[in-house]
Amino acid sequence: MSESKRPEIKRVVLAYSGGLDTSVIAKWLMKERGLEVVTFTADLGQGEEIEPARAKAQAMGIPDKHIFIEDVREEFVRDFVFPMMRANARYEGDYLLGTSIARPLISKRLVEIAHETGADAIAHGATGKGNDQVRFELSAYALDPDITVIAPWREWDLTSRTALIDWAEKHQIQVPKDKRGDSPFSTDANLLHTSSEGKVLEDPWEETPDYVYSRTDHPENAPDTPEYITLDFERGDGMALNGDAMSPASLLTALNELGRKHGIGRLDLVENRFVGMKSRGMYETPGGEIYAVAHRGMEQITLDRGAAHLKDELMPKYAELIYNGFWFSPEREMLQAAIDLSQEKVSGTVRLKLYKGLASIVGRKSQHSLYSEAHVTFEDDAGAYDQADAAGFIKLNALRLRLLAQRDRRQG
Amino acid sequence: MSESKRPEIKRVVLAYSGGLDTSVIAKWLMKERGLEVVTFTADLGQGEEIEPARAKAQAMGIPDKHIFIEDVREEFVRDFVFPMMRANARYEGDYLLGTSIARPLISKRLVEIAHETGADAIAHGATGKGNDQVRFELSAYALDPDITVIAPWREWDLTSRTALIDWAEKHQIQVPKDKRGDSPFSTDANLLHTSSEGKVLEDPWEETPDYVYSRTDHPENAPDTPEYITLDFERGDGMALNGDAMSPASLLTALNELGRKHGIGRLDLVENRFVGMKSRGMYETPGGEIYAVAHRGMEQITLDRGAAHLKDELMPKYAELIYNGFWFSPEREMLQAAIDLSQEKVSGTVRLKLYKGLASIVGRKSQHSLYSEAHVTFEDDAGAYDQADAAGFIKLNALRLRLLAQRDRRQG
Amino acid sequence: MSESKRPEIKRVVLAYSGGLDTSVIAKWLMKERGLEVVTFTADLGQGEEIEPARAKAQAMGIPDKHIFIEDVREEFVRDFVFPMMRANARYEGDYLLGTSIARPLISKRLVEIAHETGADAIAHGATGKGNDQVRFELSAYALDPDITVIAPWREWDLTSRTALIDWAEKHQIQVPKDKRGDSPFSTDANLLHTSSEGKVLEDPWEETPDYVYSRTDHPENAPDTPEYITLDFERGDGMALNGDAMSPASLLTALNELGRKHGIGRLDLVENRFVGMKSRGMYETPGGEIYAVAHRGMEQITLDRGAAHLKDELMPKYAELIYNGFWFSPEREMLQAAIDLSQEKVSGTVRLKLYKGLASIVGRKSQHSLYSEAHVTFEDDAGAYDQADAAGFIKLNALRLRLLAQRDRRQG
Amino acid sequence: MSESKRPEIKRVVLAYSGGLDTSVIAKWLMKERGLEVVTFTADLGQGEEIEPARAKAQAMGIPDKHIFIEDVREEFVRDFVFPMMRANARYEGDYLLGTSIARPLISKRLVEIAHETGADAIAHGATGKGNDQVRFELSAYALDPDITVIAPWREWDLTSRTALIDWAEKHQIQVPKDKRGDSPFSTDANLLHTSSEGKVLEDPWEETPDYVYSRTDHPENAPDTPEYITLDFERGDGMALNGDAMSPASLLTALNELGRKHGIGRLDLVENRFVGMKSRGMYETPGGEIYAVAHRGMEQITLDRGAAHLKDELMPKYAELIYNGFWFSPEREMLQAAIDLSQEKVSGTVRLKLYKGLASIVGRKSQHSLYSEAHVTFEDDAGAYDQADAAGFIKLNALRLRLLAQRDRRQG
Repeated sequence: MSESKRPEIKRVVLAYSGGLDTSVIAKWLMKERGLEVVTFTADLGQGEEIEPARAKAQAMGIPDKHIFIEDVREEFVRDFVFPMMRANARYEGDYLLGTSIARPLISKRLVEIAHETGADAIAHGATGKGNDQVRFELSAYALDPDITVIAPWREWDLTSRTALIDWAEKHQIQVPKDKRGDSPFSTDANLLHTSSEGKVLEDPWEETPDYVYSRTDHPENAPDTPEYITLDFERGDGMALNGDAMSPASLLTALNELGRKHGIGRLDLVENRFVGMKSRGMYETPGGEIYAVAHRGMEQITLDRGAAHLKDELMPKYAELIYNGFWFSPEREMLQAAIDLSQEKVSGTVRLKLYKGLASIVGRKSQHSLYSEAHVTFEDDAGAYDQADAAGFIKLNALRLRLLAQRDRRQG
Repeated sequence: MSESKRPEIKRVVLAYSGGLDTSVIAKWLMKERGLEVVTFTADLGQGEEIEPARAKAQAMGIPDKHIFIEDVREEFVRDFVFPMMRANARYEGDYLLGTSIARPLISKRLVEIAHETGADAIAHGATGKGNDQVRFELSAYALDPDITVIAPWREWDLTSRTALIDWAEKHQIQVPKDKRGDSPFSTDANLLHTSSEGKVLEDPWEETPDYVYSRTDHPENAPDTPEYITLDFERGDGMALNGDAMSPASLLTALNELGRKHGIGRLDLVENRFVGMKSRGMYETPGGEIYAVAHRGMEQITLDRGAAHLKDELMPKYAELIYNGFWFSPEREMLQAAIDLSQEKVSGTVRLKLYKGLASIVGRKSQHSLYSEAHVTFEDDAGAYDQADAAGFIKLNALRLRLLAQRDRRQG
Repeated sequence: MSESKRPEIKRVVLAYSGGLDTSVIAKWLMKERGLEVVTFTADLGQGEEIEPARAKAQAMGIPDKHIFIEDVREEFVRDFVFPMMRANARYEGDYLLGTSIARPLISKRLVEIAHETGADAIAHGATGKGNDQVRFELSAYALDPDITVIAPWREWDLTSRTALIDWAEKHQIQVPKDKRGDSPFSTDANLLHTSSEGKVLEDPWEETPDYVYSRTDHPENAPDTPEYITLDFERGDGMALNGDAMSPASLLTALNELGRKHGIGRLDLVENRFVGMKSRGMYETPGGEIYAVAHRGMEQITLDRGAAHLKDELMPKYAELIYNGFWFSPEREMLQAAIDLSQEKVSGTVRLKLYKGLASIVGRKSQHSLYSEAHVTFEDDAGAYDQADAAGFIKLNALRLRLLAQRDRRQG
Repeated sequence: MSESKRPEIKRVVLAYSGGLDTSVIAKWLMKERGLEVVTFTADLGQGEEIEPARAKAQAMGIPDKHIFIEDVREEFVRDFVFPMMRANARYEGDYLLGTSIARPLISKRLVEIAHETGADAIAHGATGKGNDQVRFELSAYALDPDITVIAPWREWDLTSRTALIDWAEKHQIQVPKDKRGDSPFSTDANLLHTSSEGKVLEDPWEETPDYVYSRTDHPENAPDTPEYITLDFERGDGMALNGDAMSPASLLTALNELGRKHGIGRLDLVENRFVGMKSRGMYETPGGEIYAVAHRGMEQITLDRGAAHLKDELMPKYAELIYNGFWFSPEREMLQAAIDLSQEKVSGTVRLKLYKGLASIVGRKSQHSLYSEAHVTFEDDAGAYDQADAAGFIKLNALRLRLLAQRDRRQG
């Protein structure tokens, strides 16, 4: 497990987007570290073609058997996004964890590919200031305690844009024109969200400029007429939109389109990073926001109070674990076991109104409903509920408070 | 403390709105229970004149010295709403506790007036199915363990509207024309919110009819242009709107007007009552929603992560305590002490965009800001942060996960 | 579900000990309520013969097919005590929940027997002041929402000992000589513990008299030489004592004998009842105390920190749920799912020293141990741990505190 | 805040015990780092003379004005141990945090002395594998964000005992005879406890050898007759032993003597370090164990259930914060505010029996007692409690469970 005692590293699996930065990393790993590089390029729904990464990897001399290009969208939504949504997870009250939840999946594949290709290390392009390095590495170590992780941004001296581009050109890496200058902000995208941060967003008093948004139309430009949709759930997971059954990734894709159109899911947040500083980000989670609202609506009628309140109490910790990179940890799995058990009857239909940035529940129904009109009605309840019980209920709930008040009055 | 041993009750303080129901209760307490009635009518910002209650009470023969009519709006916002907002309290993830938070204040005044007037009991008009009876009574018992509480709705046989009206007419109580028929839903209102429930709202699949809304314009009818506002906070409490200093109640009133105009703060919720059943309500909390969003925004830059996460973990329990009626309990006060301590530097300005139902943070600034551009910047940070530290940070956070993975691999 | 609408009750299953009180109840249910009585007498390890209950029931005219006498000790320990011990549950820091955990099992059998015999009600002999009525009834309602529960102590007027005995004699119920006078305290016993409360124990300043103890020898009379034992665990449950594999009930029985001999497991407690008042009890949990200490010892080397700390945080709520009678509730089951998942590798051997009231861990070993001598050693660790990592770890953990201190210094 | 930008360090305040290791550190800081050294030697009740440290510091050429020798025992108990005890803090269920709670006090004085003497750094003798480095440094950074911390054990190459002794001799540092060889284990001591770890204790299956114990007599050698004591509390803090008022440190000293005599407070623990590995320690906390037991006893009758249960739920997190070194953090202070508020009426007297390793509560009384014999009595309660209330209490607590059971039965 110690670095010093570990046998020489020979081959490394790189999380490779095909873009400039990870291309430089690939080359740097070969040139400066003398390693064989295996590339892994995943379609997580980021909205960019992944196939072009193949030619770029080939151009750097990577053999075909070491180029891994995969569409993992269904796995991403089914095994990561949906389980997290069952928990109603929002970090610091608001953030739907769009970046956080993608990292463990990437690390899992990196480690698996390392095992398949006989590599002894993985590498990623996350910087030393952010949360993503932590998420990549904690996941990797949890899955293979002996893996070596290389994080070039923490090691090399290519700390300015110019230095990076110079190095790229010196090593025959194509630099796209639009990458020559500094981009005015930095983004991460997948099927769940796009995050933007840095540069023009660094002053938390300044409103996010229009050009930052890429996944949602402006609410002001959204349709003037609300749109109504239904979302069906089964055991806590979304199954159908407007009655049409869909796979997890297809459902989220369709909700994204609805969210984009109605300007839903924008979040301007200053959050606390695990590495200790605050950062400001603009998140766009169009479909995720609709889904999250709907899931709560489904739980409203199908979840018992005890289960619902326990979930609410556990949620902040659960969200923090995912944010901090502890997806593959015993405590996240314990919480998941509790949460999943609660979802057995979270099935039915939620009706939502989408309008100018807002997704609102307007109706919910379920054959598993715990809502009892007979009990709650203002009309005659036919004896379903005996109001006299309330007197005893209150009396015994009050007893300790009365004893306390008597004590305190006695003592002055 | 026992009912049976308690000396005969002679005088009761009634929470009196001046409306039909509490007028019937006043009369019933006199006629059927043979009690002297003291009335307490409070202006909590419900939007109705309270002065007319005086004449009605007089008409029932209540002497002037036993008619209490008070404007408690400032106390309500300052000592109840604002402290609760410091906690970012939302019951079951959404409900801003507008009804729950008003009850302890009313009970407090009922008990105080009982002491002033030599009364030995209080009475309220809440039914035996709801949460309000619990909130009124727990508060009262906590403040005076020997008080007697009379809840006519749990005792009498006027269980139908017709029976109630017949009784009223028989006892010379004026029945307003619009109270003859059943109202299609039931409401509670104060400066923080209006809640509507019952009848037309009892099917949680049916969308709330337009006529239910009384505090907010339809988002569809709201202005087509966003409005930007600033809200200033000091030590966790709102102090100024658009730079104009305001008292707590004035501030909330002004925010209500903004919220009404932009259709903000509508919530269609199926919630879990403390007495055990689910109920569906439509809440309108126009100013409260804006305030709650702004408060979180203020905390984003002024609150340390440790404090913020602890608050998030404590919030569900805190909200549950208020919802269940335990405002005057040691555990609510303990949580409040922790929360209040965290607010010492929650001061500064939040800028919000109000548009068609949505209040969004667009900027926040504070001289107490913990946000450090120097640390987070993508640019050269002049040595503020050493990226190499992250490697050790990750290594030690990963250590237990690696030991776990080694153990589990060893064991197969 | 309403009492008033429910069809006439005809047959009731009574939790019947064979003692005076439940014999009176049986007769009372027949005479005063006109019901057919089915008796259920369980051997939970209370240390009394249960077979004599048969003749007594027969003497009251109950037909053989309606007399249920069962040894449920294995089920009790396997399905209730052990799962609870996996959570390290102690109510209010100390109480091992010996009475609380037996109630749901009894209720479960009462309801099952009701279904088998076509009864529509159950009855129990718990008083209206204690927790047991709540535990019996919540369990019963959770298992059969339409069952009727009869609690004679809350209904009849036999409120003095004399009245009870007079009634018994009038109805040909044998009154044992030693039951004529009031007993100086009241007890409940099962394989896990004996509790004593009331009368001589009611002043919490007075030391418990010697004659109260029934399950443990005085520490002062215990052997002067310590005894060492080993306890083997598998997946969180005890499996063997001193290397001898035993069934759950046999293991607890053997530990009880050891605990009795060494005076282990006495607890003098003033606790908070769910019904609102404080009560003082003396608990003797000889084997349970040893088992609980050993289980924690086993977890020390086999449980990851994240799992262990999560368990510690969840425990108070879990214990409260059992104490309050919510064994059969969604939230207890959710917590159990989390806890059980954590126990998969809690296997190995704990060595304990038993001496004069104290059970102490002196050693623990496991093939699933997470303890790594290589990491912790003061000797050369052969590179297992890089001390330099600690610097970065501390730096990033400190970052938010430094930013905070800089802010507060800046602000004065 | 950045290391690189910080002006050259010139003077450092060292936590100096006067022993070999910190003497070597002092010299090393002068010779290898070219720093002026200020020494701080504190009497925390570790049981060793601190005055000899003066001559040793002088012998190394440190001027008198830079030698700080202080008795901080009262501050230690009053401002650190007692507040922690109010929370009933035990890390991982058992550990009374004896080492953890001393570190923030030492750091506080180091930083204060740095400010007084114009030093820009502090140094400590904790290794890179343990928790103490974290506790020292987090405290220091929280109190002075710009302080530099030097941790020689993480930096130098004196990693073997021989190397250290050679270096000492080469630099004229006296090496006591008994320090020549490796000691068979390592200790830390203060007024609250002595911890022992390492070497002979590193195999968690091996029983702790007799010679490890230094603070407690063997239970087997303790008096054969129990000793009874009383402890008086006021607002949650111990004030008097057997009726004699004492200062905090005097009280703990007296309890230590009692605990030593009766063999109380030994704990063999495998715990989870913040830096990620498990370690095994033997703790002796004689007086602290008695105090902790007594404090819980005092709370049993003076603390309301709501407050008590909230405290129990918060405790694990509170203990973890102290263990991990976050004494000076907003979240610890928030929790402390909640805990302290709960202690206002935790006043009265607890009676304990001390016998062969065990401290047991046998009685407690208080003029602030919430225990009501009138409510709990098996005798006639003169109407204090109406048993009929229990029926309604149970019915409404059961309602949600019945609705759930009906739903699940309906669904099959």
